[in-house]
Amino acid sequence: MRYELYYWPSIQGRGEFVRLALEAGGADYLDVARRSGGMQSMLRLLMSEAVARPPFAPPVLKAGKLLIAHTANILMYLGPRLGLAPKDEAGRLWAHQLQLSVSDFIVEVHDTHHPLGPSLYYEEQKREAKLRAADFRKNRLPKFLGYFEQVLEQNPAKRGYMVGGKLSYVDLSMFQVVAGLHYAYPKAMRNAAKRYPGLHALHDRVAQRERVSEYLASKRRIPFNTEGIFRYYPELDG
Amino acid sequence: MRYELYYWPSIQGRGEFVRLALEAGGADYLDVARRSGGMQSMLRLLMSEAVARPPFAPPVLKAGKLLIAHTANILMYLGPRLGLAPKDEAGRLWAHQLQLSVSDFIVEVHDTHHPLGPSLYYEEQKREAKLRAADFRKNRLPKFLGYFEQVLEQNPAKRGYMVGGKLSYVDLSMFQVVAGLHYAYPKAMRNAAKRYPGLHALHDRVAQRERVSEYLASKRRIPFNTEGIFRYYPELDG
Repeated sequence: MRYELYYWPSIQGRGEFVRLALEAGGADYLDVARRSGGMQSMLRLLMSEAVARPPFAPPVLKAGKLLIAHTANILMYLGPRLGLAPKDEAGRLWAHQLQLSVSDFIVEVHDTHHPLGPSLYYEEQKREAKLRAADFRKNRLPKFLGYFEQVLEQNPAKRGYMVGGKLSYVDLSMFQVVAGLHYAYPKAMRNAAKRYPGLHALHDRVAQRERVSEYLASKRRIPFNTEGIFRYYPELDG
Repeated sequence: MRYELYYWPSIQGRGEFVRLALEAGGADYLDVARRSGGMQSMLRLLMSEAVARPPFAPPVLKAGKLLIAHTANILMYLGPRLGLAPKDEAGRLWAHQLQLSVSDFIVEVHDTHHPLGPSLYYEEQKREAKLRAADFRKNRLPKFLGYFEQVLEQNPAKRGYMVGGKLSYVDLSMFQVVAGLHYAYPKAMRNAAKRYPGLHALHDRVAQRERVSEYLASKRRIPFNTEGIFRYYPELDG
């Protein structure tokens, strides 16, 4: 099946977690909004009043007749189909549970530059962003990364993956989280490789996988920038 | 099966979405932390370094050998088992997708009183909370409620439910969202019944269901208070 991904064409954002799974899973897919006329197709889809199951926001995955929204929901659907998740119910629930913690973390990362909400520009909430980012660096970043490191340590398979003994979409998402944090918070992340050795080993192992490294070197990988979730604003990095 | 719910005993919070499903589904369950010695059991569970699949935070549901965390994940698991979700994959994905939009909305509701993050008290971020709450009332509240109302309108079953033609856990969550918003933002919600008639009809219908009305009148229903997600701070209500 040829999947269709609908997501903003100029940022990694939440769509990147889906792109990584599609790429690492060797899926046949179109990144619709990045193609000529694709933005219009996406906006038509989002504004439609005729659709029985309207999505709230991108990313949206079209899989045959299915229209699936929410990053974690899309990954849950794709996971077993792309060989990137366990097939048993307990394993699927666990992978999804971890992905939902990634989602929560991502919201907090985004809130560091938008503490007063998404309607105001960053420049209008810079003072508040500094306060929120300071708390993020001190408390939330260690709490989440410490948790994910603990998951690696307590995984009975002891193969260095988040779920069981092989690569899953959760590992791809952890790669993206670690890469994004190093981009956005280079100072705060300076000693992170020592503090979270499992996560950094996982990051490197994912980046070196054939399909992933090929993707990361391609034009399909949009560079990090200050429009997405992970933004580098030196004043927020302490 | 007797389910065990682990959640903070003095607030509705995220646990309430699970409690409502357990109650409306007529499940046999223990609200562990509300029983004598239960807080210790919950903290032991959360701090355990021996568990293969550690939860990040409550709510956690114990179902036989399974330990499931994240509200939306728990509801996805319980839904078909309690007769509160479609059994086909497309229907389950759609119900879960809506629940994830509820999760996102809940985070934004919480952020109105904690824009600088969860580490500071409300009193330490009152000024910023007023700014964020103003944006919430003006932009985000109408965006989310408008979306959920649209879902009701575009549901081909036309029976007034969110998913298909019968009650699901998503309807129970919408009840909780509408009730919580009326508690926390009575002024902003004053004309909401006219603007979102479908959601309010759904709220009333859910509240009148036998098991739900019995639950709401019982001591098992913790009252809204200023420790949970929905908090009534008059200064945030404009």
